[in-house]
Amino acid sequence: MPVQKTLPVVEKILSANDLIALENRELLDQKGILAVNVMASPGAGKTSLILRTIAALEGSVRIGVIEGDVAGRVDADKVGETGTPVVQINTGGGCHLDAPQVQSALRALPLDEIDLLFIENVGNLICPTGFALGEHINMMIANVPEGHDKPIKYPGMFTAVDALVLNKIDLLPYIDFDLDAFRTAVRALNPQAPLFQVSCKTGEGIDAWAGWLLACRSGVTAESA
Amino acid sequence: MPVQKTLPVVEKILSANDLIALENRELLDQKGILAVNVMASPGAGKTSLILRTIAALEGSVRIGVIEGDVAGRVDADKVGETGTPVVQINTGGGCHLDAPQVQSALRALPLDEIDLLFIENVGNLICPTGFALGEHINMMIANVPEGHDKPIKYPGMFTAVDALVLNKIDLLPYIDFDLDAFRTAVRALNPQAPLFQVSCKTGEGIDAWAGWLLACRSGVTAESA
Repeated sequence: MPVQKTLPVVEKILSANDLIALENRELLDQKGILAVNVMASPGAGKTSLILRTIAALEGSVRIGVIEGDVAGRVDADKVGETGTPVVQINTGGGCHLDAPQVQSALRALPLDEIDLLFIENVGNLICPTGFALGEHINMMIANVPEGHDKPIKYPGMFTAVDALVLNKIDLLPYIDFDLDAFRTAVRALNPQAPLFQVSCKTGEGIDAWAGWLLACRSGVTAESA
Repeated sequence: MPVQKTLPVVEKILSANDLIALENRELLDQKGILAVNVMASPGAGKTSLILRTIAALEGSVRIGVIEGDVAGRVDADKVGETGTPVVQINTGGGCHLDAPQVQSALRALPLDEIDLLFIENVGNLICPTGFALGEHINMMIANVPEGHDKPIKYPGMFTAVDALVLNKIDLLPYIDFDLDAFRTAVRALNPQAPLFQVSCKTGEGIDAWAGWLLACRSGVTAESA
């Protein structure tokens, strides 16, 4: 066979996941819902932060939650107890959520009664950033006990997010966590994203985080109006 | 084409990863090295436990370490400061170690001067169990701040391991961690594996863990003698 001189180059083909993420995004925009992809290590406090935010924003916005876990429904049960609409996704071994899973969950939620949707991803500091879900905001929760060196070891996640929460600051007196070193490492990767220091145990710092979310939600509403 | 009536059935084909894991295992056995695959969430204390174990077993066995991280060499530098032979693997985004990476690392280590090899996997409670490395022992580190519900959410890891360490028990007074609920959830998945409660900060419980490792190492030596 002769060597082919010009090769067809096709660019910007969306993956199947990205196509469905776009559909999710369109549906969310249509419904005026701000969607937040919540990422973190196992046990960083994803559900705790969501529960604190639900309490802080009660009466201001109507919240819905999609819970992603490898197995179990512990988190969905906790959220459900507050009366918040919630759907549990079990990935059955999968280490991140994907757009088709979120699409299924969206079909099971009362979207007309939701202004702000938390999508709690699987506990994993690596893979979730590789899969768009249709979210408007990507955020991560770092936490004091896991140590201040995490930005150095997991740069992809710290670079990808639009906002960071540092949780469990109530444990600072008991743990060798260098807050300055952490901030410096975060800023080297992500100069812009707001960084909120909170304790989901005591409630410290939750208002600033919740207020920022509320401002983001107003922005989305203004755009879609 | 006629329908094929009898289909050839080929069973137990090893994946490329498993084939190389077998080669790693043969090399380790030849050299009389006990290899331990150390798995945990980010920040659970993998490097801290390895450092504590190096100190506890000084003079008894010669230790070597393979450090796996997405990026950085923070951990390898810490281990190197003790004079222990160490190789850093950067997965560059990969969420677990694989056998070829470990094979490369083994080539860079002075195997004739090592009795016990720690392979510190990437911080991830999900994917590492799916990839054999050639190890003799699979162990995981759970930790108090990440919460007692982790066995329910990450059953694959808790089921797969030969030994568990619960780290950061010094933080029990400051955290809502239900030790009985944790033990019950672990035992439902893994009735046999020894569970060591330790604090890498204070050193509590390290001797029991190190003693168990030493006993395992004697077993390996006896077999290969």
